Amino acid sequence: MNKNYLITIIMILGLSITMNAQKIIHDAEQDILQEQYGDQWASQDKEIDKKLKELEKKFGKKPNIIHIMWDDNSFGEVGIKAFNKIRGFDTPRLNKMGEDGIVFTRMYTEPSCTPTRAAALTGRLAARSGMHTVSFPPEGAGLPAEEVTIAEILSEAGYSTAFFAKAHQGDIEESYMHNQGFDEAQFSLYNQFPPMFWHAEGEAVGLTKGFIRETTEKNYIVDQTWRPYGYIMDVEGKKGEKARETLPPTLENYREISKQHQEKALDFIKRKANDDKPFYLAYWPNVYDLIPQGQEITTSNSSMFAQNIERLDMYIGQILDELKAQGISENTLVVAMADNGPMVEVPAAMYQVVFNGGKGDYREGGIRVAAFAQWDGVIDAGTYVGDMITVHDLFTTFAKIGGGMKYIPTDRIIDGIDQTAVFLYGDGQSRRDYYHVYTGLSHAATIKQQYKRVWVGGRPGLVKNDFFDLYQDPREMRGMMAQFLWAWGPFDMMKKRHDAMNKKYPFYSRHGVPFEGIENLRPESKIYQETVKRTMETGQ
Amino acid sequence: MNKNYLITIIMILGLSITMNAQKIIHDAEQDILQEQYGDQWASQDKEIDKKLKELEKKFGKKPNIIHIMWDDNSFGEVGIKAFNKIRGFDTPRLNKMGEDGIVFTRMYTEPSCTPTRAAALTGRLAARSGMHTVSFPPEGAGLPAEEVTIAEILSEAGYSTAFFAKAHQGDIEESYMHNQGFDEAQFSLYNQFPPMFWHAEGEAVGLTKGFIRETTEKNYIVDQTWRPYGYIMDVEGKKGEKARETLPPTLENYREISKQHQEKALDFIKRKANDDKPFYLAYWPNVYDLIPQGQEITTSNSSMFAQNIERLDMYIGQILDELKAQGISENTLVVAMADNGPMVEVPAAMYQVVFNGGKGDYREGGIRVAAFAQWDGVIDAGTYVGDMITVHDLFTTFAKIGGGMKYIPTDRIIDGIDQTAVFLYGDGQSRRDYYHVYTGLSHAATIKQQYKRVWVGGRPGLVKNDFFDLYQDPREMRGMMAQFLWAWGPFDMMKKRHDAMNKKYPFYSRHGVPFEGIENLRPESKIYQETVKRTMETGQ
Repeated sequence: MNKNYLITIIMILGLSITMNAQKIIHDAEQDILQEQYGDQWASQDKEIDKKLKELEKKFGKKPNIIHIMWDDNSFGEVGIKAFNKIRGFDTPRLNKMGEDGIVFTRMYTEPSCTPTRAAALTGRLAARSGMHTVSFPPEGAGLPAEEVTIAEILSEAGYSTAFFAKAHQGDIEESYMHNQGFDEAQFSLYNQFPPMFWHAEGEAVGLTKGFIRETTEKNYIVDQTWRPYGYIMDVEGKKGEKARETLPPTLENYREISKQHQEKALDFIKRKANDDKPFYLAYWPNVYDLIPQGQEITTSNSSMFAQNIERLDMYIGQILDELKAQGISENTLVVAMADNGPMVEVPAAMYQVVFNGGKGDYREGGIRVAAFAQWDGVIDAGTYVGDMITVHDLFTTFAKIGGGMKYIPTDRIIDGIDQTAVFLYGDGQSRRDYYHVYTGLSHAATIKQQYKRVWVGGRPGLVKNDFFDLYQDPREMRGMMAQFLWAWGPFDMMKKRHDAMNKKYPFYSRHGVPFEGIENLRPESKIYQETVKRTMETGQ
Repeated sequence: MNKNYLITIIMILGLSITMNAQKIIHDAEQDILQEQYGDQWASQDKEIDKKLKELEKKFGKKPNIIHIMWDDNSFGEVGIKAFNKIRGFDTPRLNKMGEDGIVFTRMYTEPSCTPTRAAALTGRLAARSGMHTVSFPPEGAGLPAEEVTIAEILSEAGYSTAFFAKAHQGDIEESYMHNQGFDEAQFSLYNQFPPMFWHAEGEAVGLTKGFIRETTEKNYIVDQTWRPYGYIMDVEGKKGEKARETLPPTLENYREISKQHQEKALDFIKRKANDDKPFYLAYWPNVYDLIPQGQEITTSNSSMFAQNIERLDMYIGQILDELKAQGISENTLVVAMADNGPMVEVPAAMYQVVFNGGKGDYREGGIRVAAFAQWDGVIDAGTYVGDMITVHDLFTTFAKIGGGMKYIPTDRIIDGIDQTAVFLYGDGQSRRDYYHVYTGLSHAATIKQQYKRVWVGGRPGLVKNDFFDLYQDPREMRGMMAQFLWAWGPFDMMKKRHDAMNKKYPFYSRHGVPFEGIENLRPESKIYQETVKRTMETGQ
């Protein structure tokens, strides 16, 4: 073997190791698109890099990124004035946000809070890390430490990071937001329902049925530890430090912490606006409480939900106003969106407006959400984006915009695609035209372009309610058969490729003892924790 | 009796006759509103009169009025860009019209073509004049001569009037548009389906099943007159003259006459733009044909329907452009709207988008339509009107704007309310908050404010799917019971008042021999006519 030959081999090996180290593993479907558009995208990426560098030069740092995400919203009812009229409440700030930036008409999330939030944090289908199901106290599980969050990536890239409000990412220590890459955090371990259980007026909207905090008549109640008296609603913490419970769970305290989250989000912006470092803020407001409790109803839509939405809109307005007040709106990307469709089972004025299906559902109503983006001077006002984009893509896109692509792990599937081109150039720029929809651990449907195939609930062996054309039939009313026989094979192939990737990179989950790492546990929380600990020891 | 006393009596009688002669009889519900707002509205009317007079002074004549109305459209899919994206086709001109003028979010029509068109022409519930049902050839019925149309009223008030495209108001001579007050007209007697029957390619979309124009194999077919070979698709005529069939019914001719209607509408505008008289143009384009016949599909929504809608949008754009070209857009009110919801039974890409229900249905999906108004310099750009307004109201409103209120008959119920205030001052100005919805002769539902009570299909004697809150539940998914017990009585009272008025002013209808007054009848049309004549003679 001559020397030159050896050098060549070493160079090739070295190059392949370098390339490999940088190559993000996407789901199988993306490789097929990459083959068709790789060169074009590489060339566009050079333009994008140039544009981002120019912005960095102009503002002296990378762009700030704010991701606002709220719960359970029917597509259409916020951000489009005509539909405000139909629903009888007003969202002037979200409407204006849409006018000033991007209205997304095909932003897909996962079907529920916990999975969508995990997807946003990790850029991965929530099922991959066990985060596929909405949890209630006690859970004894959560986002595994091995997951690499956008907060960790942007921290590496030199960002200040903060998380406020609803995490819903588990109750085990490693899942806490300040242990998942955020410099500072105040966050809810679960969702908005438990605090409502505590309030007698919950009865009025049918929420407290089945749970009474205290009764004078304790007939037949033997176990005093079984009911969730010790559950923790909200904690705060700093990176590297222990958590502290903020306020114990009552409806009044829940309302108080919702205000605190908003104030902290505003305060973080103020503190970091003129800092040398850019910031990433994940603000996922709780907002909703569905119990009137003497509050005046001021909307035409005479429901607490409508009041909540108007408050949310006001809160978002305050955030946007603060960016202007601090003079940083031209160096801040704001994405505001719902986390999934309406919770149509709850008798509290959450209804389907456009699509069929709601929270927890693989139909469009469950996963196609209101979403808006604003970035003054960068995103053109009046942009409508009909491209398919998913909440997972925000992870990769934020990493790109924040200069953190090199910190994305390359030992696992990253479902999120870099969609920076959509944010910079608008409609028709998506690098994705597919989405595998999971409900829990079940692969429920696959969407490709305007077509949707449902894998569950059909008539096995024969096309029934399995195929939909989403342009013609956005509400998935008429399952088609003959019209879609051409798509049978191509969809089967997609699923096979996806399944093969899943086999290579198996799903996993993390379980543990809840409430560890909280330094001010109440006595009833300790009792509660003990019960769970006993469960964990005896098996899962 | 002294002389003064007699004079007083005569004066009172005279005054009461004069007042009575001017008083329009509205449905019972309106009297209740009138009592509450009479003074306020009278005072506002003075302002409105002043404003209209100023406009008349400025332009030297009263405003031109154009009423464009098309078929079978799902609310939301035109005029709102976000929803264009969802449906996969574009309506830039209607979107722009919405931006430049009024977007109505609660314009109610009747549930089908024929009744909605009769309602627009007469200002009355279509059931009052027998125009409650969509007709197919041969009908032997139509809009009675006694009905006073907006064309007759505006003719009296000094307008030039024209009707083009789809009338669907019957096939008897007195129902023809040039016999119902229009100076000139070219119009279809029925709807768009019969022409499609003639074309073999209709088979492809399942439309020609059950009818074959010609077969080589005539087994068992004895009667040669029964099939509609002699039906008349489209005629033209001038006030006081006989009608002439334009082109015999074929799919190709149908497409040709659709173009002719558009050209005639544009030509009428050109001819009348600088005339001393203002004009009223009812242009109700056919547009739809659902048979591809070798046409290229250019929309993302791969359906003929989407192609049709884009053509309609282009046509409307041409009308609006012509107004600008002629310099009359500031003296022309244009109202553009659908006539009812989508025909969801037709396998041709008409689907529900927002509301539930389609054409023929009393649910919102049948009767709540896309509607826009433009009047440069008078209507503010970006106006959203969430008020309840109905197609009947256009009759009265056009009469008001055209100075024809005194020609509205006062011997019958006029359901249409003068809504000029909505057009001049925008949101929150409606003088109506109720609508009695008819399907055929059946009083199917009553809407009051945000509440809807369904009179048919419920569970007699007990609230079931009878009550809906349209703000909370725009898709009428959840019939409510306990929440609406307060509204039971008030709705009952509304119905009683409405029924009492109907008893005083009974519904009627007009039947006759079809195709009379057409001077160029084809031989097969005469045979067809003869068959119907025999029916009319033997009883109806």
